[in-house]
Amino acid sequence: MPNTFGKIFKLTTFGESHGAAVGGVVDGCPSNFKLDFNLIQKELDRRKPGQSSITTQRKETDKVEFLSGIFEGKTTGAPIGFIIKNENQNPKDYENLKNLFRPSHADYTYQKKFGIRDYRGGGRSSARETVARVVGGAIAKQILSKQNISITAFVSQVGEIKLNKCYKELDFSKIEKNAIRCPDEATAKKMLEKIDKIKNAGDSIGGIIKCVIKNVPAGIGEPVFYKLQAQLANAMLGINAVKGFDYGSGFENVEKKGSEINDLFVFKNNKVTTLTNYSGGIQGGISNGEDIYFRIAFKPTATILKPQKTLSTNEKAVGFTAQGKHDPCVLPRAVPIVEAMSAMVLLDNLLINNAYSK
Amino acid sequence: MPNTFGKIFKLTTFGESHGAAVGGVVDGCPSNFKLDFNLIQKELDRRKPGQSSITTQRKETDKVEFLSGIFEGKTTGAPIGFIIKNENQNPKDYENLKNLFRPSHADYTYQKKFGIRDYRGGGRSSARETVARVVGGAIAKQILSKQNISITAFVSQVGEIKLNKCYKELDFSKIEKNAIRCPDEATAKKMLEKIDKIKNAGDSIGGIIKCVIKNVPAGIGEPVFYKLQAQLANAMLGINAVKGFDYGSGFENVEKKGSEINDLFVFKNNKVTTLTNYSGGIQGGISNGEDIYFRIAFKPTATILKPQKTLSTNEKAVGFTAQGKHDPCVLPRAVPIVEAMSAMVLLDNLLINNAYSK
Amino acid sequence: MPNTFGKIFKLTTFGESHGAAVGGVVDGCPSNFKLDFNLIQKELDRRKPGQSSITTQRKETDKVEFLSGIFEGKTTGAPIGFIIKNENQNPKDYENLKNLFRPSHADYTYQKKFGIRDYRGGGRSSARETVARVVGGAIAKQILSKQNISITAFVSQVGEIKLNKCYKELDFSKIEKNAIRCPDEATAKKMLEKIDKIKNAGDSIGGIIKCVIKNVPAGIGEPVFYKLQAQLANAMLGINAVKGFDYGSGFENVEKKGSEINDLFVFKNNKVTTLTNYSGGIQGGISNGEDIYFRIAFKPTATILKPQKTLSTNEKAVGFTAQGKHDPCVLPRAVPIVEAMSAMVLLDNLLINNAYSK
Amino acid sequence: MPNTFGKIFKLTTFGESHGAAVGGVVDGCPSNFKLDFNLIQKELDRRKPGQSSITTQRKETDKVEFLSGIFEGKTTGAPIGFIIKNENQNPKDYENLKNLFRPSHADYTYQKKFGIRDYRGGGRSSARETVARVVGGAIAKQILSKQNISITAFVSQVGEIKLNKCYKELDFSKIEKNAIRCPDEATAKKMLEKIDKIKNAGDSIGGIIKCVIKNVPAGIGEPVFYKLQAQLANAMLGINAVKGFDYGSGFENVEKKGSEINDLFVFKNNKVTTLTNYSGGIQGGISNGEDIYFRIAFKPTATILKPQKTLSTNEKAVGFTAQGKHDPCVLPRAVPIVEAMSAMVLLDNLLINNAYSK
Repeated sequence: MPNTFGKIFKLTTFGESHGAAVGGVVDGCPSNFKLDFNLIQKELDRRKPGQSSITTQRKETDKVEFLSGIFEGKTTGAPIGFIIKNENQNPKDYENLKNLFRPSHADYTYQKKFGIRDYRGGGRSSARETVARVVGGAIAKQILSKQNISITAFVSQVGEIKLNKCYKELDFSKIEKNAIRCPDEATAKKMLEKIDKIKNAGDSIGGIIKCVIKNVPAGIGEPVFYKLQAQLANAMLGINAVKGFDYGSGFENVEKKGSEINDLFVFKNNKVTTLTNYSGGIQGGISNGEDIYFRIAFKPTATILKPQKTLSTNEKAVGFTAQGKHDPCVLPRAVPIVEAMSAMVLLDNLLINNAYSK
Repeated sequence: MPNTFGKIFKLTTFGESHGAAVGGVVDGCPSNFKLDFNLIQKELDRRKPGQSSITTQRKETDKVEFLSGIFEGKTTGAPIGFIIKNENQNPKDYENLKNLFRPSHADYTYQKKFGIRDYRGGGRSSARETVARVVGGAIAKQILSKQNISITAFVSQVGEIKLNKCYKELDFSKIEKNAIRCPDEATAKKMLEKIDKIKNAGDSIGGIIKCVIKNVPAGIGEPVFYKLQAQLANAMLGINAVKGFDYGSGFENVEKKGSEINDLFVFKNNKVTTLTNYSGGIQGGISNGEDIYFRIAFKPTATILKPQKTLSTNEKAVGFTAQGKHDPCVLPRAVPIVEAMSAMVLLDNLLINNAYSK
Repeated sequence: MPNTFGKIFKLTTFGESHGAAVGGVVDGCPSNFKLDFNLIQKELDRRKPGQSSITTQRKETDKVEFLSGIFEGKTTGAPIGFIIKNENQNPKDYENLKNLFRPSHADYTYQKKFGIRDYRGGGRSSARETVARVVGGAIAKQILSKQNISITAFVSQVGEIKLNKCYKELDFSKIEKNAIRCPDEATAKKMLEKIDKIKNAGDSIGGIIKCVIKNVPAGIGEPVFYKLQAQLANAMLGINAVKGFDYGSGFENVEKKGSEINDLFVFKNNKVTTLTNYSGGIQGGISNGEDIYFRIAFKPTATILKPQKTLSTNEKAVGFTAQGKHDPCVLPRAVPIVEAMSAMVLLDNLLINNAYSK
Repeated sequence: MPNTFGKIFKLTTFGESHGAAVGGVVDGCPSNFKLDFNLIQKELDRRKPGQSSITTQRKETDKVEFLSGIFEGKTTGAPIGFIIKNENQNPKDYENLKNLFRPSHADYTYQKKFGIRDYRGGGRSSARETVARVVGGAIAKQILSKQNISITAFVSQVGEIKLNKCYKELDFSKIEKNAIRCPDEATAKKMLEKIDKIKNAGDSIGGIIKCVIKNVPAGIGEPVFYKLQAQLANAMLGINAVKGFDYGSGFENVEKKGSEINDLFVFKNNKVTTLTNYSGGIQGGISNGEDIYFRIAFKPTATILKPQKTLSTNEKAVGFTAQGKHDPCVLPRAVPIVEAMSAMVLLDNLLINNAYSK
């Protein structure tokens, strides 16, 4: 279970940062679906290190090899196994991590849970694992796309630099035009300047990603324990460095009154809709047909190039300064991961609904 | 799955607001554990309607009847079936809900998902369902308590009234001393005044609950998809009216730099600990032995006593004014629910760890 | 998990032989389905003790009370909670079981697994638990019936008395005409005489149940780990006293050659069919549209009225003679249980197929 | 789910007969366990084609490559991803399968379920998939072995040639001494002669494998739906060509009386044991500490070299004669698969028990 995500559309991932490969298995994928392999690679390229000056300069081509479940370009209903080979393996770079617990990393907790840890580049705790999620998500996204469902994430805050516009005012086609993946050019520029400064100081910075899902039909999700928002929260909090999630009116509106944020139903353009959408497209755990939108809070990455004090594995105080190539701000590379996880949640729930809608 | 929570300590719930009973089945409970039935009932009483002037005056005694899985006061390892009879059933009160979709309620989405809905008091979407969660949680809490793990939730914000203190400065023994379950008396008083005003206006108000879990050993949780924080987020977002979740430094610190929020390891009092706890007791999805703490954002309840416009089930514009007894602010009654869900997550993960620690 | 059966149509059961009630929760049931409650009760009556002179004379009315998930006679998609109260509770009858382990019963193994056991009437290990399965199965059966799928089980062997006819030669309408549920009158008579003799000797006898499922469309099941036959085997071996399972040509044909038992495809009556059906309607784990049929071997019940030697709970040799009312042959009462479990497996797999067939 | 086996020790497999590779992911493996890679390869070699004149002469080296979850020879608790490359790929060999449904194969049912099929060598329905199960099982077996649990399968019947001895009279060290894996030399010789004759006739033959598991502690398994025998049955019926399963006294003893097959408890050699073991080491779904033993019935493989009549994919009658290299009797190669599946079931249940035994 811990490495498998989903109910009937399932992704199992495996692989460590500096092992032979990261990979995964997609099980429960609809059969007879013609895959667009370019789209899958494109999503991987969005997550890839070294895309711009603000992301880590580690080199990984991140080419996915599919091993099964596809025949003459189409899914067969059999599990889709795939691997992405690790190319940038230089275990010696990590020799210095062997005997200490890095601050705010998973070194200590892995050691406590498993009694052993692959210290090379964080091993399984490395965000490199998410490369497999992007593959699973890119498959889900294509299938959703045929049903006209679109999933778009973007960076809305870096440090104190905020994009103060409703997502409806934004031109999503601009997201990929800049290195930070913020659809507002002026804000993007400020964010990039901020990150540059942070990077030069050997430090890191947090921020917020927003995600908008359009054209989900009403009726998708679950009413009690695995409400659609709960599944999305689980998906998002399962991404490294994520510290918070809210949807619809979220945290910002806890100060509001019911009379201010209730979404009144109206019949417009021949369909049931709501005048406002504080609900974020979900009511009682189930989609109501309006846009689903949510925010994900990222902390600054734990890896900074400044000297820090910590403990050795035998519990002595030691100094530590991270080496190598790291992201001062993970947000732009996290955008495709957020979309991938969202896509898998959505498709999984759509399939469950199909089971009962015949 | 949709009505079952947990991996090996599992709670399945059933029941609607105005059916015969709400109930549940706890499966995977450790055997040979002597239950304190008074503690279970005490938790139910904390959730019960009619506790104070600020909660709904609906009358439910909420007495739980255990039907199985317990022999001579001890758990047997067999599933623990239980029911809480619904006493306050007056379906006529709800005849007016039959033909319309209440704003920001689950009426419309249930109709779309299931093609039918039990409109009496919201049916399955009623928060009455959580009475069964409190039973499951009260069992889990007792078992955790034997391992010295404590779970404490309290109200930290109502509307704009905030409790501006770190949880470490608070006296948790005061939480139950007031109707709002805020451990700071002065703040509690302001919150209650606020709610009183809101209630008199026939409106409702949102707020924030904080939860603190102490003495969780290091090593509990999962590293990838079901990180401990992701499981907690899923649990919390599965509670009615919850709109957001964050843990540790959460949303408030996305503006911080890595150098400001990294938690440095130190060896103190003969154990590994961290100088600060921005991580909220979880690193890499796994507990590190520090306090686990998180916030849950609640929206104002959708039920208000003011007239609202909405649609009938045949899509005509209609007016609607809620009748009956409702909570102007759900937070005090949600406190035991937050604790119950947290307890089940923790126990489930502790058991999973046991599986591997022999 | 251990008390929940199914993937998306799920039954969770609870309850012991001499507790307050046995019950269950059906989750994932198709919504908006009009239930025939008489049919459900009729299935319970088929399983009920005291139906005839050859079954135990324990008195249980076995009336099911539905507590949730049903509104105005229709399923709502919410979990269907139900209980069957235990009426024949006389714990004193079982005082003699407290301090010993009955031969070939679950007393010893429960004690070893759970460290405690409810010794009254076998507690959770009693076949009384199956009353909840019959409710779940009776719901599944109705839904399957609308798709024209029929499930029929009957007794084909008691001790050495065998029904030596292919199921196609039998008149299934005669199954319910005799107390042993064998559709061949002459054989039924011999079986009943056999059981009568066994009963008078205070002994018990084993036998075989056959089950035939008709009109399952081709394409249902899973190709690898949970092949349709594997799911059926799991379902059947989960019934008390079952020792074996085979389907299609089964054990009887291990001596055959491939050229003798391959089922050749032909096109007949405008559909793909097979000339023979040694495959038992399943190929590669998936239904092929032919009749599915299988056999289930039952051992003689462990409870006999003859004196036996065993151990006390403190491991001393003691004598033991069972008291009370017991079945000399469980097979007639197991017939509806076999059908119930089969129905749940089939419906669950049909729903999974629906998920992908839209 | 369909391609994942187990509850907390989980194996997910992927791969087709003629794709790039077959592989799998073991999740939930105990960490810090030193793996013996030679033992894993040895198990693969037992399953490998071309071991002897009676198995298919297809050439596969079946070398497993581990990609993750292992560090310095030890399991890390992270998922163990692995692949076995397919070397014997000559898709042209299978061009003749493209347009027809082979009798008693999965061609037709896959087409009906998935709407597409990889016809090359049976694709996912090929027994080649079991190579991944042997890897998972070989890991489980090593861990069980440290707890002194041994799992031994052997061929006990081929066609009408039966090994008429109780397993206790057999010398298991002789199993690997002959090509049929029957521990009795005289019987093995007859079986081999039989298979030779069958092979020369271009036909195939069925048989029975017995499996014996020793030193399982009392208390392992589940009491209701997933009884230990039900899990084993599910595991065995999930192997290609398996048609039946029984355990302990099984089918052979349905003619017996309770007084003949009840296993009386005695205290001997300082432990609770039973005088006889008709129960096959399991009572009430839970191990009682005695040997667990069961039988698995295999049909003759569907692939025979004789001409057969069947249908084309467009439902016309066509003739078909299989080409290439095939097993006239799958049993010797199925022996390690039976052991692998059994090992995974046992370990999974032992881990679950650990969860509750602390």
